Amino acid sequence: MDINITPVKTSKIKDIDFSNLAFGHVFTDHMLVCNYKNGAWEAPEIMPYGPLSFEPSARVFHYGQAVFEGMKAYKDEAGDLFLFRPDESVKRLNKSSERLAIPALPEEIFHKGLAELLHLENEWIKPGKGNSLYIRPFVIATEGAIAASPAQEYKFIIICSPAQAYYAGEVRVLIAEKFSRSADGGVGYAKAAGNYAAQFYPTSLAHKEGYQQIIWTDANTHEYLEEAGTMNIFFRIGDTLITAPTNDRILDGITRKSIVQLAQDEGVNMEVRDFSVKELKEAARSGALKEIFGSGTAAVVNPIKGFKHGDEVFELPEVTDSFAARFKDKLLNIQYNIEADPYGWRVKI
Amino acid sequence: MDINITPVKTSKIKDIDFSNLAFGHVFTDHMLVCNYKNGAWEAPEIMPYGPLSFEPSARVFHYGQAVFEGMKAYKDEAGDLFLFRPDESVKRLNKSSERLAIPALPEEIFHKGLAELLHLENEWIKPGKGNSLYIRPFVIATEGAIAASPAQEYKFIIICSPAQAYYAGEVRVLIAEKFSRSADGGVGYAKAAGNYAAQFYPTSLAHKEGYQQIIWTDANTHEYLEEAGTMNIFFRIGDTLITAPTNDRILDGITRKSIVQLAQDEGVNMEVRDFSVKELKEAARSGALKEIFGSGTAAVVNPIKGFKHGDEVFELPEVTDSFAARFKDKLLNIQYNIEADPYGWRVKI
Ligand SMILES: Cc1ncc(COP(=O)(O)O)c(C=O)c1O
Ligand SMILES: Cc1ncc(COP(=O)(O)O)c(C=O)c1O
Repeated sequence: MDINITPVKTSKIKDIDFSNLAFGHVFTDHMLVCNYKNGAWEAPEIMPYGPLSFEPSARVFHYGQAVFEGMKAYKDEAGDLFLFRPDESVKRLNKSSERLAIPALPEEIFHKGLAELLHLENEWIKPGKGNSLYIRPFVIATEGAIAASPAQEYKFIIICSPAQAYYAGEVRVLIAEKFSRSADGGVGYAKAAGNYAAQFYPTSLAHKEGYQQIIWTDANTHEYLEEAGTMNIFFRIGDTLITAPTNDRILDGITRKSIVQLAQDEGVNMEVRDFSVKELKEAARSGALKEIFGSGTAAVVNPIKGFKHGDEVFELPEVTDSFAARFKDKLLNIQYNIEADPYGWRVKI
Repeated sequence: MDINITPVKTSKIKDIDFSNLAFGHVFTDHMLVCNYKNGAWEAPEIMPYGPLSFEPSARVFHYGQAVFEGMKAYKDEAGDLFLFRPDESVKRLNKSSERLAIPALPEEIFHKGLAELLHLENEWIKPGKGNSLYIRPFVIATEGAIAASPAQEYKFIIICSPAQAYYAGEVRVLIAEKFSRSADGGVGYAKAAGNYAAQFYPTSLAHKEGYQQIIWTDANTHEYLEEAGTMNIFFRIGDTLITAPTNDRILDGITRKSIVQLAQDEGVNMEVRDFSVKELKEAARSGALKEIFGSGTAAVVNPIKGFKHGDEVFELPEVTDSFAARFKDKLLNIQYNIEADPYGWRVKI
């Protein structure tokens, strides 16, 4: 596979303040672009990051045919570069694509294209636990025609944004009682662009009440806890860790499945099962609820300090032996090549 | 309100075969573009139709913040131009926008901008019942940052595509039993881009079985009939016409509400109520089911010849006094200024 590379004349890296990065606002010097046309993916190209030209009739603008992934590249103290479970990302991208009637991307284009791009952006990846390069691969329908049917032309693009350790501040969440994120038989399990915009308005209402995120419940009954905006959710009751099973409404998070595995292997009582709002509130009242945390590539693990359901507000206790802190640390140590990785999750590139 | 107009040097209209137009593939000479920046909509511009430049990090590509409308302009034999219920379109656009956390567009920009654009494209609108100019207003999030939150920058764009009378061929439909289109508390009632891509894959599976469309059922039970891809659905049992009530899962179609009104005013027994698959199948078996038809701006009214549910296949009878034909004709006559319009739906521009 040939990748045509057009490097930038001058890097903009010297203008970037790496100690003050807002998430997803700064992009590196290059991007990868690969076109799908006449029934096939063409050779990818790496070119200077910058605006691209699109027909105003491009299908992505009208019918939302768009899927994405989120990954990170990590650098250890020796300067080596690593990805975390990249196979899972490309598989999930293609699973998302299938649901949105987007042609599958050959895995080789993804893996080789990404490796090539990251080597070019090596300087942008800073060592140090917490520093990383956030990677955004995505596929969009570019064909310029507004017939309501799958497009014949697509672009697969990878852009990269340097990121610091993500501290979201104290996070409190609303539990959804009216709005919902996805339906059975819908596209909730896909990283489909439309799933995210659909959450912005309910989340903005939560912000007004002083809550940073929403924990979505099943759309049928609003009785079972599912996931948050860009995080799966774990609950710790006593020393038992609980997370919802994945299904066609819930994103099969890579951080989630890694934590489930770690917890099982460390002998934690790990339950993957439906978990109801009722059970959560009872545990909160009895004092059995020790922790709630979200899991996702951006924040790794995000502790949740409190939640609201109906008129009831709950605040979580301080814990000294936090599972959130323990699994976050374990994952970071694997990602940054600080600890051995018996799973083969860390991939040197 | 000032609209800056940059006309094309030469129109491409002479290259267009108006007797052979595939839906949504040919666009007129101009488009309207209006930017939202720093908390306000700027003055709209009319410029030659053509590609626009977008950041690859534009939020529409990643999080699907995009809504649209679909309208038509009609020309009568005297050469006058008309729209059908344009107030409903702008109101629905802003209702869709609110749900996707997109700032509302001032109605004046919509109405004046569209009128100005259509006068410029007058030649593209051919008289004759069935000929029209399909109008696609849409709003997309353009800000170049991939934070998962509402964008700070948007574009409102209107593009136009000449259309002929739409004949979809014989349409048979599958009734959804597994896949679903939208959830209670979701975005189904909005013309949100992501709602459409989500239907492409299930619809492609229906195609493989020889069905052109899917009639969506409620995501909870799959027992109640809702709407099709871009059409609301009517059922005629004996001389009673039935359509589902709108709710937060179903698009409040302008054609639908116009037919409901016409049917009521013509003394048809018009029932707006939940209608179950069970009731439909019983009526099909007893012979009471006379017609099924879809309603929407593109096709106006689209008769459905048959349907499948589970393993059961049903074929509809030929009717001589078709409600579908009657209401289609009535609507077209109002739209093309052939009949009096007691409702004030037809708006001369
Ligand atoms: C809806 C949703 N849930 C959960 C996650 C977490 O998935 P992962 O751990 O693979 O990043 C994401 C993505 O980041 C997401 O978008
Ligand atoms: C999902 C959906 N249902 C129904 C309709 C019909 O609505 P209208 O009659 O306003 O065109 C449309 C739009 O065309 C639609 O997209």
